[in-house]
Amino acid sequence: VNDKNVLVGTIPLSVIISTTRQKKIVNLMREAKESVHFSVDKEDVADIFRKRNLTSLAVVDNKKKLLGSINVEDAVDVIDDEAEEDFLKLAGVGEQSFYDAIVTVTKARFTWLFFNLIAAFFASFIIKNFESTIEKLVILAALMPVVASMGGCSGTQSLTTAVRAIAMKQLTWSNAFRSTIKEVFIGFLNGLVFSFASFFITFFWFDDLTLSLVISISLLLNLVFGAFFGTFVPIILTRLGVDPAVASGTFVTMLTDIVGFLMFLTLATTYLI
Amino acid sequence: VNDKNVLVGTIPLSVIISTTRQKKIVNLMREAKESVHFSVDKEDVADIFRKRNLTSLAVVDNKKKLLGSINVEDAVDVIDDEAEEDFLKLAGVGEQSFYDAIVTVTKARFTWLFFNLIAAFFASFIIKNFESTIEKLVILAALMPVVASMGGCSGTQSLTTAVRAIAMKQLTWSNAFRSTIKEVFIGFLNGLVFSFASFFITFFWFDDLTLSLVISISLLLNLVFGAFFGTFVPIILTRLGVDPAVASGTFVTMLTDIVGFLMFLTLATTYLI
Repeated sequence: VNDKNVLVGTIPLSVIISTTRQKKIVNLMREAKESVHFSVDKEDVADIFRKRNLTSLAVVDNKKKLLGSINVEDAVDVIDDEAEEDFLKLAGVGEQSFYDAIVTVTKARFTWLFFNLIAAFFASFIIKNFESTIEKLVILAALMPVVASMGGCSGTQSLTTAVRAIAMKQLTWSNAFRSTIKEVFIGFLNGLVFSFASFFITFFWFDDLTLSLVISISLLLNLVFGAFFGTFVPIILTRLGVDPAVASGTFVTMLTDIVGFLMFLTLATTYLI
Repeated sequence: VNDKNVLVGTIPLSVIISTTRQKKIVNLMREAKESVHFSVDKEDVADIFRKRNLTSLAVVDNKKKLLGSINVEDAVDVIDDEAEEDFLKLAGVGEQSFYDAIVTVTKARFTWLFFNLIAAFFASFIIKNFESTIEKLVILAALMPVVASMGGCSGTQSLTTAVRAIAMKQLTWSNAFRSTIKEVFIGFLNGLVFSFASFFITFFWFDDLTLSLVISISLLLNLVFGAFFGTFVPIILTRLGVDPAVASGTFVTMLTDIVGFLMFLTLATTYLI
């Protein structure tokens, strides 16, 4: 620091120890490239440590005056907490520790079970509208979960990748379009394989060509929709200022359930009844 | 270190700098409590850094001879990688990076979609056995997803908590019983609230007392089963030497789907038909 307490450079501790006492400190000093403003979020600071492999970092105010420093040990705690936070939020269990009281944990999980119940009854409402279709072809009721759960599985895979990529600042609004396209393409590739598999399983089980086509087409489309929603929902939530790790899971499974039931039963009503 | 290169103590760097040159190093030395054997897993080493807030750690061989040291910066990378690994494995996306090639990602996700397809068709098989029940009461087809998805949601909540607790070494085989009991109790508490809610929603929608009772009882039981499986499955997999983060998700949703459909349709067949 200079006379006005403004940060001008840093000296590694190892240099201080290994140099004779006569040298002037200004000659040993390196330019201080690494400093953060005091208002920077602790998660962003942890990100700087993570990417640049630092051992300490100076903290400065608006006029670049030195306020203090952060050591890498502190960053470890933040990185650790942050990872745990994202991890638990993704399942809608929130910021609870393993040793928390039962009532606290119960309350923390309540909200997402609540949204899931609303979503599930909304799915029931969709299915109920196809009551007459199912009455004529009960087998549709048995096959509905295949389409819905494969879409949900594909959606959760894309979602987990996207939430992590957002946290690591690899997925941003600017590359959102490219990332979504990529995920959709992955969903489509796996969808092709699994729609073929489902076609043959259904055909050998029920010996009905149209039914097999209906299930394989709706399965392919729902895997693609799942991959799309899994990437799109967290990106949109981040853009809206909502933490994507908290809310995405419920939205994505709700959307894949509803789109899956709707598509499968509509196709079945059109081509089978 | 002594003459034989055996670790006897450590001196903090700050003590070396701030002490006059005349003092003997043996007087400054603290007893070295923190050292690890060279064969210790890097994730366990990261855990030591995390818990004891160290800046460096000596590495020794079988005879306690000093081999080298690990700094906290290296631990940051491990903690970070480890968190990402658990995080991605939980969704069955494996160890892939955001920038990986599309084909690699597609292959990595294939396995869990494959297991999900098998599980979904197995659920279809269960439902198909109740074909005559559904034929008589088509409304059951519409309500099935409510029971299955609430169980799945509860299971995923417990699972995420358990997988994280296993990774942090808070959940072990020895406290497995107590942890499972706790999760089941949490599932039961939330289950009570949501089974009441479902009872009223179903009663106002379909005006059928027995149907409302059947859905609320099977929903309560499936929330409890979900919490049980969500804790029990990762504990058992860990005990068997399988990484719980990879395989648990598919097992838990498969079990809650199957138990949910089976319980709901059995109760409906017994009391409604």
